Amino acid sequence: MRYNYGSEESLDYAEVNRAVEAVFREHARGHVQMPPKVYITFEHGDFRTMPAYVPALGMAGVKIVNVHPDNRAAGLPTVMALTVILDVETGIPKAIINATRLTDMRTGAAGAVAAKYLAPKKEVVLGVIGSGRQAEAQVEAISRELVITGIRVWSREEKNARAFAGRFKAHSATATSVEKACDADVVVTTTPSRKPIVMHEWIHDGTHINAIGADAPGKEELDPLILKRAKVFVDDRPQAIHSGEINVPIAKGLFHAHDIAGTLGEVVVGVKGRRRPDEVTVFDSTGLAIQDLAIAQLAMAGGQVIELPFP
Amino acid sequence: MRYNYGSEESLDYAEVNRAVEAVFREHARGHVQMPPKVYITFEHGDFRTMPAYVPALGMAGVKIVNVHPDNRAAGLPTVMALTVILDVETGIPKAIINATRLTDMRTGAAGAVAAKYLAPKKEVVLGVIGSGRQAEAQVEAISRELVITGIRVWSREEKNARAFAGRFKAHSATATSVEKACDADVVVTTTPSRKPIVMHEWIHDGTHINAIGADAPGKEELDPLILKRAKVFVDDRPQAIHSGEINVPIAKGLFHAHDIAGTLGEVVVGVKGRRRPDEVTVFDSTGLAIQDLAIAQLAMAGGQVIELPFP
Repeated sequence: MRYNYGSEESLDYAEVNRAVEAVFREHARGHVQMPPKVYITFEHGDFRTMPAYVPALGMAGVKIVNVHPDNRAAGLPTVMALTVILDVETGIPKAIINATRLTDMRTGAAGAVAAKYLAPKKEVVLGVIGSGRQAEAQVEAISRELVITGIRVWSREEKNARAFAGRFKAHSATATSVEKACDADVVVTTTPSRKPIVMHEWIHDGTHINAIGADAPGKEELDPLILKRAKVFVDDRPQAIHSGEINVPIAKGLFHAHDIAGTLGEVVVGVKGRRRPDEVTVFDSTGLAIQDLAIAQLAMAGGQVIELPFP
Repeated sequence: MRYNYGSEESLDYAEVNRAVEAVFREHARGHVQMPPKVYITFEHGDFRTMPAYVPALGMAGVKIVNVHPDNRAAGLPTVMALTVILDVETGIPKAIINATRLTDMRTGAAGAVAAKYLAPKKEVVLGVIGSGRQAEAQVEAISRELVITGIRVWSREEKNARAFAGRFKAHSATATSVEKACDADVVVTTTPSRKPIVMHEWIHDGTHINAIGADAPGKEELDPLILKRAKVFVDDRPQAIHSGEINVPIAKGLFHAHDIAGTLGEVVVGVKGRRRPDEVTVFDSTGLAIQDLAIAQLAMAGGQVIELPFP
């Protein structure tokens, strides 16, 4: 068994995007096993257990990931993740991977794959709502698929937005209002909001939106009117209904499971997608265990590992 | 984070029995979180993911355990297990534990707790069906709770039964027929059988049976007539109905969920149990994630560990 504690540093965003795109293709074909995430709740947080098996990769395992919002005050990451990989033929634990940073990258990759297929054009102005780790990952990953001619970033803390813009000067990034950030070809939302912060009237025809932040019941970032107007694609139907951007509107009866236009996998294999340049499209990302297996395989291929005795 | 690769060697069976008894008490009180096991299936085996949280212990984590029947031919264990422990307050992965042998011990401990409360007397003749690792663990664990005056062991391979008897000479163990092995005060069944091997007419009044082997749909060791005659206690109702000794009789309509007399936790806290010396009692063990947390806590308290950087 190998314990991997740092190889994610050397992973290439373009390579991760391709690996994640490939597992969404397998997902569309029904060639994966991925039971629903299992939640355990604590007083100050929770953790989710995410087992999966992708036969085409020969990869099986379990990601274990916590969410402890109070950690920030203690100087710890809110979200930390670890993936255990098992040998398919014998069941022996093969590797344990620090997946904290890999989780950011594989989520960025899903957004990049969605933007590649659903953006209205190949050169885009990017609107970024939120300025944390996931906002960065989205920009990095999308920049490998599309030419970014400008970034408009908004954050609740203006100084965070300015710092973010400073890090992406090469893409002509500027801090702006939330309304102006929505005036873009591709908008990515990456906040932990529990009420809509992106309004219907701010989104112009043809925009593609990656709705990344909502990953638990009660979370939402988009005005439900946007969902009624848009073609809404999800990563996984049951998971999106349970905990994605659509979970609150569904609970309120403002959106219905049959309103889902398709899955990202169906978009990748070409059976679903954007049909007109003026359509608004939304990708509702919750994060799938198969994405974790895809990036785990890349992490295992290189980097620093410790060999441990098993069985 | 600590990786533990051998401290189970130093664990004490009596101490494990007490720790497992304590979590069954918590289970009866409804003070644990334990979602159903999640199964992933391969061509040549499967693995199960078992998350849980026991607030009274301050312990949370996930056991990951495979079953690959073909492994034996390759000189590998059929079952291997690994437990990841998370810090409740921050979600940081605290320890990774090789739980292969701990799984045997905590299953033995559940049997010992059941025998302690349900055996017809304190000095017993023990009947053992099967002669593998779990048969040994049952004898070791039960011997800490009851005085064993004799062991009658049967195995499909007679030489295995003789070898087993040789290892337990101190308890006057002898290899015998399956029928004679059932002529005992406490009978433990530990085989991977998919059809009954213990017949109704071989079990005399007052016997307590630990039905350990059945832990997946389709497995059974006991003549269903025994279940109709006995008071049947389970470790966990949903899990026993899904994959315990009662799963096949329930699927065939020969036994019903409402026939379950109670849980082992309810026996431990005293609200259910043996009421007459001539009753036949059965403990249907499937193995609970909370048992894995109980023994993980003991394993973490001592033994050899490697410190690893996290987050």
